[in-house]
Amino acid sequence: MREINLRENERIDDLQMKGLKIIQNKDGFCFGVDAVLLANFAKIKKDAKVVDLGTGTGIIPILIAGKSKAKEIIGVEIQEEVAEMAERSVKLNNLENRITILNEDLKNLENKLETHGFHVVTSNPPYMHPEGLKNPNDKKAISRHEIKCNLEDVIKAASRLLMPHGKFFMIHRPTRLADIITLGRKYRLEPKEIRFIHPKINKSPNIMLIHFAKDGKPELKVLNPLYVYNENGEYTDEIKEIYSKEEIGEN
Amino acid sequence: MREINLRENERIDDLQMKGLKIIQNKDGFCFGVDAVLLANFAKIKKDAKVVDLGTGTGIIPILIAGKSKAKEIIGVEIQEEVAEMAERSVKLNNLENRITILNEDLKNLENKLETHGFHVVTSNPPYMHPEGLKNPNDKKAISRHEIKCNLEDVIKAASRLLMPHGKFFMIHRPTRLADIITLGRKYRLEPKEIRFIHPKINKSPNIMLIHFAKDGKPELKVLNPLYVYNENGEYTDEIKEIYSKEEIGEN
Repeated sequence: MREINLRENERIDDLQMKGLKIIQNKDGFCFGVDAVLLANFAKIKKDAKVVDLGTGTGIIPILIAGKSKAKEIIGVEIQEEVAEMAERSVKLNNLENRITILNEDLKNLENKLETHGFHVVTSNPPYMHPEGLKNPNDKKAISRHEIKCNLEDVIKAASRLLMPHGKFFMIHRPTRLADIITLGRKYRLEPKEIRFIHPKINKSPNIMLIHFAKDGKPELKVLNPLYVYNENGEYTDEIKEIYSKEEIGEN
Repeated sequence: MREINLRENERIDDLQMKGLKIIQNKDGFCFGVDAVLLANFAKIKKDAKVVDLGTGTGIIPILIAGKSKAKEIIGVEIQEEVAEMAERSVKLNNLENRITILNEDLKNLENKLETHGFHVVTSNPPYMHPEGLKNPNDKKAISRHEIKCNLEDVIKAASRLLMPHGKFFMIHRPTRLADIITLGRKYRLEPKEIRFIHPKINKSPNIMLIHFAKDGKPELKVLNPLYVYNENGEYTDEIKEIYSKEEIGEN
């Protein structure tokens, strides 16, 4: 393994998959189950060109690089310090030939990334409204709240990047479903599949995976539910399988 | 019980609830679990004024009259023979003082029913596309397929009838979710709650209940799933409870 410098408060976590590792800052936003679910939900063909909007630690590009045969994955991150940390994680995994971290505002990609140049866009964007935040400059707050970009910015950027019939995979809260569908159609992203994620069998979903197709035909499949915990409070077999899965689908 | 004439091919079914009965035509569309689920999902306050669009046999007005304290329920049905049969069911249950069956096209209610005059609208509209139908004049086909009205006609009519913050409860297929949400917003009906109905615990939903509020605030709750059958192929306890429930909520 290459020697990579760690800064204060950083640690290296093992992703338990093909030897992949990630650098995280203990005081910043650390990746959660959402990123793992999204990387698993995305369907990525061999030689695909992929952009991850709001990449944070770089977890999604690194998982996609590990699980697929994508050729080029670009992770866009607005926070300079966070992007620099993600870049070190890319180097730590010797993935510089497939992953590029771009320290840029996703609202400002026009001259940076080709219009209609990508097969797939992924995003695990900030979910929360920024109202009432005590410290809106806090790194963790920027990852979680719509401070630097909102839902429309993310959907608009995804639509511009995608080639015809390109795919956009996003994870978000079910409370925003109506906004997500309305904005998707505004930017010619047709929702094709939704998978709701329920903490338990009889609970409301608290998160959802959504797959859009650029200029797709209107017909939505609501997939079978994904339950995170079983009745004994343990991860369900499907969640365990997702965590250990070494390859994602190609369709 | 009053004496009500039955026509050829008609039969009287017992609704197993407060002695309510319904006349159905064996060759026509007979009500299914959808109508029972919708009548149970609707929240109807005391003295509410309600319209059911595309009422068919009148099953939804009759169940709502039985389960709520609604003052006035109008069932709109385009097919003359079907409307006449529904009217006989209303009489059979002595509900003429609360239920009126209106034999009219729901696209043509402007001079028949007051604009913004109702608290609640319900609808179990035709789900299917009319393409490739052999006999588009068939009564059953008209109940099932978008022949005489489409989704937009139903949503537009509901919006016109509802007073501010009035509620629209509909049951439909998840495949149409994106259209339903987009059209709802077009006519100022904001989706507030969705409940997906799954044949079994690990299956995709094949039907969904949706609750809109006229000019409501954008925030959608995806409710806990409703499973129809358990692992032994029997109705789940919740479905049994819905069938036997004598009162629906007031909120």
